[in-house]
Amino acid sequence: MDKKKFVAVIGGGQPSPQEANLAEAVGRELAMRGAILVCGGLGGVMEAACKGAQSEGGVTIGILPGESRQAANPYVQIPIVTGIGNARNVAVVKSAQAVIAIGGSYGTLSEIGHALRSGIPVIGLNTWSLSRNGQQDNSIILAQNATEAVNKALNLAKHQ
Amino acid sequence: MDKKKFVAVIGGGQPSPQEANLAEAVGRELAMRGAILVCGGLGGVMEAACKGAQSEGGVTIGILPGESRQAANPYVQIPIVTGIGNARNVAVVKSAQAVIAIGGSYGTLSEIGHALRSGIPVIGLNTWSLSRNGQQDNSIILAQNATEAVNKALNLAKHQ
Amino acid sequence: MDKKKFVAVIGGGQPSPQEANLAEAVGRELAMRGAILVCGGLGGVMEAACKGAQSEGGVTIGILPGESRQAANPYVQIPIVTGIGNARNVAVVKSAQAVIAIGGSYGTLSEIGHALRSGIPVIGLNTWSLSRNGQQDNSIILAQNATEAVNKALNLAKHQ
Amino acid sequence: MDKKKFVAVIGGGQPSPQEANLAEAVGRELAMRGAILVCGGLGGVMEAACKGAQSEGGVTIGILPGESRQAANPYVQIPIVTGIGNARNVAVVKSAQAVIAIGGSYGTLSEIGHALRSGIPVIGLNTWSLSRNGQQDNSIILAQNATEAVNKALNLAKHQ
Repeated sequence: MDKKKFVAVIGGGQPSPQEANLAEAVGRELAMRGAILVCGGLGGVMEAACKGAQSEGGVTIGILPGESRQAANPYVQIPIVTGIGNARNVAVVKSAQAVIAIGGSYGTLSEIGHALRSGIPVIGLNTWSLSRNGQQDNSIILAQNATEAVNKALNLAKHQ
Repeated sequence: MDKKKFVAVIGGGQPSPQEANLAEAVGRELAMRGAILVCGGLGGVMEAACKGAQSEGGVTIGILPGESRQAANPYVQIPIVTGIGNARNVAVVKSAQAVIAIGGSYGTLSEIGHALRSGIPVIGLNTWSLSRNGQQDNSIILAQNATEAVNKALNLAKHQ
Repeated sequence: MDKKKFVAVIGGGQPSPQEANLAEAVGRELAMRGAILVCGGLGGVMEAACKGAQSEGGVTIGILPGESRQAANPYVQIPIVTGIGNARNVAVVKSAQAVIAIGGSYGTLSEIGHALRSGIPVIGLNTWSLSRNGQQDNSIILAQNATEAVNKALNLAKHQ
Repeated sequence: MDKKKFVAVIGGGQPSPQEANLAEAVGRELAMRGAILVCGGLGGVMEAACKGAQSEGGVTIGILPGESRQAANPYVQIPIVTGIGNARNVAVVKSAQAVIAIGGSYGTLSEIGHALRSGIPVIGLNTWSLSRNGQQDNSIILAQNATEAVNKALNLAKHQ
């Protein structure tokens, strides 16, 4: 398993139907390509991605904020119970070699920040875009669909 | 001290001279207004803000990422040694009732995300601006100078 | 404030009356000696120690596990809101140069472990004693009363 | 995988040869019984346990303190990169339904404290024993060998 690539899928707990479909397709594609899915373990985008990955026989890891494994969505196979609340966002992205962000709100924004700070590539699907002092920041690599996002994530996956 | 307001100043470790001046002015202003300064305890914007606050007799708290209080800048009076790395960004913003962001890079972006997710107001001075799916997000409240930033922070400071 | 010594007082949320008295006396003594009190910010031993310190004009820091400063006991002047649950126990001891343990249950035991692992001296008043493989471990330095505990804490306080 | 039991093996980075043998036997036994091994991901007892588990085809999870998956021992299949230092000790025990402690020093002691505080059963092999105020605390369940430790861990594994 240690040669497999770890990719995090991040996004909100209450996605639009289109975002949920994207997340499920990303999960399926990651599993078909032999990658391991890392996520925050809860509902919404996280659950849809895990569902997709599991449907193709993939491995799913959920790094949970709370105190109980019961909070994991039903498609998480490996629940990690941190008890550290949203500080677990750091562990979600650091445990991955690339991150795919789908939609998402401020929690997702914090994860994008943590990933970029650590040099972990972030692929974006309908997610945040950033500018600083009036200048566009192009660190989030855009993708148009699930397949493109997974291709980019696996190609750019950080070695360490 | 418990009736005083706690305001976090966040920003990069390598600010431009203009950003460092802004941070120092924000620190001075916070101290003159009786607020307590919270920051990440290191250099750059954090150090300039602490220097400004201390010059006006203010209290400065530095919530450090590493294992040693020695890493605090010389103007931190109360070093908190977390040992949890960048996950301490969460504690920096949650320990404040309002946040002032000055310039900053991806670490600052993660702090903005954590603050907005927790409903803590963020005032921005030459910092990130955000849009999502092509729509501008106006959650970061803009200010033009240190006095305006501190006024807005103290007016909007979250009660709890 | 930066030349002052930081001492953590750790212990349970439901102390015996004798333990609460000890904690209050330790807090008073720390304040009289000019030390800054660090604790977990909640009730029981933490509250009694803060009450004692405040009665003598001392500074009290409470490093809270939850998401709100409202959870701090009324004698905490500087609430640090970590949101990381019991992982904040690490920050409580690392933010101090010496630790005084009074009674306490398993949370206190975890703090003793974290302190000793970091080379921070632990003074014990009616608290845990340890042995390993049948051999007594004397790392916890015993004290008979509040004054002795504070003397030992200030004498042994780690420099960094 | 979600019906499988998660068991943490904790212990020091520099075990005696006898402790390393015990850890390897515990790892083998856990894998043969279909349990998933959780540990802190580094060397010593952690590595020996992972080696044993892998030799019997078991799954091994390493919850790392640092910033890089490279620090994991070679038998960790699923590295979780937390970046939160020793605060990850909390996640190691909370991610398990039972804990087996083998030898160990103060880091292990902190993990025992965190586990007992969360109601997670701790089985001890040549590890710490505890007393409080002169009274023996029997919360650590003793075992004489690897098989007995694994039997007890699987029988007592907390449901949630």
